[in-house]
Amino acid sequence: MITLVLLGAGNVATHLYKAFKASKNISIIQWYNRSTEHIKQFNNDTAICDDITKLKEADVYILAVSDDAIAKTSDSLPFENRLIVHTSGSVNVHDLNKKNKRGVFYPLQTFSKDVDIEFCDVPICVEALDKENIATLKLLAQEINSPVYKISTEQRQTLHLAAVFVNNFTNHLLRIAHEITDNKQINFDILKPLILETAKKVQHISPYMAQTGPALRKDKSTLKRHLKQLEKQSHKDIYTLLTKSIQQTHGK
Amino acid sequence: MITLVLLGAGNVATHLYKAFKASKNISIIQWYNRSTEHIKQFNNDTAICDDITKLKEADVYILAVSDDAIAKTSDSLPFENRLIVHTSGSVNVHDLNKKNKRGVFYPLQTFSKDVDIEFCDVPICVEALDKENIATLKLLAQEINSPVYKISTEQRQTLHLAAVFVNNFTNHLLRIAHEITDNKQINFDILKPLILETAKKVQHISPYMAQTGPALRKDKSTLKRHLKQLEKQSHKDIYTLLTKSIQQTHGK
Repeated sequence: MITLVLLGAGNVATHLYKAFKASKNISIIQWYNRSTEHIKQFNNDTAICDDITKLKEADVYILAVSDDAIAKTSDSLPFENRLIVHTSGSVNVHDLNKKNKRGVFYPLQTFSKDVDIEFCDVPICVEALDKENIATLKLLAQEINSPVYKISTEQRQTLHLAAVFVNNFTNHLLRIAHEITDNKQINFDILKPLILETAKKVQHISPYMAQTGPALRKDKSTLKRHLKQLEKQSHKDIYTLLTKSIQQTHGK
Repeated sequence: MITLVLLGAGNVATHLYKAFKASKNISIIQWYNRSTEHIKQFNNDTAICDDITKLKEADVYILAVSDDAIAKTSDSLPFENRLIVHTSGSVNVHDLNKKNKRGVFYPLQTFSKDVDIEFCDVPICVEALDKENIATLKLLAQEINSPVYKISTEQRQTLHLAAVFVNNFTNHLLRIAHEITDNKQINFDILKPLILETAKKVQHISPYMAQTGPALRKDKSTLKRHLKQLEKQSHKDIYTLLTKSIQQTHGK
């Protein structure tokens, strides 16, 4: 049995709480947040706490707090030499106060407040300054059925950057498509199966091989017509830049 | 029973062939292509033909040929006053020779050669110059379990443009993420669940509401570090432009 104290009350913390709570070999013995407002509903299932000086002794402390709060929270911990991990994709592991053993437990996924997620779909990237703690972090991930990857700080920060492309930027392209269709009174639902299939396709073949479309075919008349159809200059700029980039990538 | 002649042997034609073949109330009585090389394997199931002067009489002729070949193929049809539809997202319905009744049967999806697709995930956008033919086209779509939408030429061309954003451009962002991770010896598989979840999320909430990330949060230190991490100028340019566009869209 691994004992765990969870710190933070955001999306990541809440999803982790539910996953760990459902696992057999992990016991969440306490859930801390500076305000218990959002977590007091779980009072019957675990010890809730808003006083950081009253943290219980546990095998692992998971700091699922915002990037800005990681260093400060780790400074405030009233003990030494225990295993502390943060859950951020970008914060350096050395930002954790060195009085404790330090590591990272980074779930690479987008979490929404009211959408349940299966942790088998949440890869966990683990990192630890002391090698012997890697095994514990891997075990934590395995207990919630997550695929687990041991990575370096540089690799984690690269993944965080890549995630901006596949999630934030991709989502913004979907937003632009929504805007374009809305402007012509077209039901955005028509595009939803294509959005899903685009993501499904690269689960099996590389995005390089999956590329199609007028930019790849160098179909000048379609490219010209599309640019003419776009009403916003910012959309034209994005169309032009991504078209150029596709053609450079697949240049013959 | 609706009788059908299919023209073309590309991905769209082949997927349509399989779907119509499995439907109860549609009979594909002939499959034409200028070369029977790719379709001769279906010789036992339907009449195969490479001589356009020998097309049989049918209720509907589906021209699932490349955009460039649509006008020419429709000119070559050796009959008049029958219902002809093309399957393109961008070609004008008037490019079909006016000696026949004209329409469009546009499946808005990405088709891969060896990947089976359920037609319930393929919205069909239909258009017809004569109103009375819309019902037939809708029936065709319903017979293969596709959601069907009656749209105008302008709306179809707008959808085609929007599809470039949600499919071609999105896929290229995934390619860039693949490149970034490969360069640091990171397994691209780690990103695949996030790619899928990004697409799933907008099935239920709008892309506007689904937006997250450092651009939205105006997290300057992360934006700066990401730009520094990117090695290629073209990737920096895309990062900068999409970040700006997200901030304009969600400007406060």
